[in-house]
Amino acid sequence: MKVKEIMDKEFIVVSPGDSIVDVSIMLENHRKFTTPVVDDAKKLVGWVTSLDVTRGLREGNKTIKDIMHSKDDIVHVHQNDPARLAVLEASQHKVVSIPVLDDDDVVVGVVRTFDIVKTLSSLYEVKVSKIFEAMTEELKGVSWDELMEASAIVTRRRTGKRVKPEDYERRIKDSTFGEAIWATGGLEKFFVGLIAIGELVIARKVAKARK
Amino acid sequence: MKVKEIMDKEFIVVSPGDSIVDVSIMLENHRKFTTPVVDDAKKLVGWVTSLDVTRGLREGNKTIKDIMHSKDDIVHVHQNDPARLAVLEASQHKVVSIPVLDDDDVVVGVVRTFDIVKTLSSLYEVKVSKIFEAMTEELKGVSWDELMEASAIVTRRRTGKRVKPEDYERRIKDSTFGEAIWATGGLEKFFVGLIAIGELVIARKVAKARK
Repeated sequence: MKVKEIMDKEFIVVSPGDSIVDVSIMLENHRKFTTPVVDDAKKLVGWVTSLDVTRGLREGNKTIKDIMHSKDDIVHVHQNDPARLAVLEASQHKVVSIPVLDDDDVVVGVVRTFDIVKTLSSLYEVKVSKIFEAMTEELKGVSWDELMEASAIVTRRRTGKRVKPEDYERRIKDSTFGEAIWATGGLEKFFVGLIAIGELVIARKVAKARK
Repeated sequence: MKVKEIMDKEFIVVSPGDSIVDVSIMLENHRKFTTPVVDDAKKLVGWVTSLDVTRGLREGNKTIKDIMHSKDDIVHVHQNDPARLAVLEASQHKVVSIPVLDDDDVVVGVVRTFDIVKTLSSLYEVKVSKIFEAMTEELKGVSWDELMEASAIVTRRRTGKRVKPEDYERRIKDSTFGEAIWATGGLEKFFVGLIAIGELVIARKVAKARK
């Protein structure tokens, strides 16, 4: 995934010569805490936050160029950078938004942390049952019921808890991938549990075929 | 995971009677775009953003109570709520931070989107090779080299591309879980690929045992 796929294209821009009062109204109306400052060619020249604006208003500054951060002092990414880079930059620098540039340094978007949260969290929200459905499609000759039975057996072996196949089925229908990796203690452990289930159903399939 | 495990405990609070000018300086010094408004017992009564402050400064309001949002109009979560709830609220309401309360409505923390990004993205950053290492530990009697060989075969079957086991090994050492699910086309497909590899090594193990 690239930065351009997660960036917000509905952003506002301001100019170094804009009045601070006008920009404060603009930020309030658009509910933005930050905005890129661009030149006449829409190239990034700086960055302003609502905290720069409060200071500017208090101290009686007149225009954006008096309060803005220069381009060199802020984080920015390229639209073709991996989305991963914007995610790392946002969490490392603890910023709420990052301007996105094209090859000519023109601002083409803004990546916002709540959009990143939305993108990242969609993975966590995948229902565990979807993974099991994909498993039965992949493992030809293994039925859903056989998979649930094997899952109940593996759960008992690993946790010592007795669960019925139908309890297991209900649990994976209700739970998300995020909850599952949390409950099992991490991605690797979650996956190893699946492999153990896969190993058991395959062993049973082989045994059945031999009869 | 619970909200209290991802919340920031280093937050600031303001009172309804505080002057807007003082709060603007406080927000700037602490680099916070938002802050909870609390009463004398530290209970949440409202919420103020730097955009409320810019408007207040411009319009000549004096104290926080003139510009704050009341508690009923804002999103808040309980410290024992699942962390998932804070994540969903942040992305749904497009807010950068959410106050966290205890049973007495006292503010005990603030969940910030860049902290959520950090927590969520750590999963994406898990090296794919870690999952394969966990697989070889689980599948007794299957060596790392056998696993890489099976992976190369499955990759060829699924993509038509010839890869050597050593190329496959290099690739999973360099790539993250996030990149892998993006490359394979989603979480379910990624897992199905691993299950296919698991099925092949198990079939080979069974065949070897029979000889």
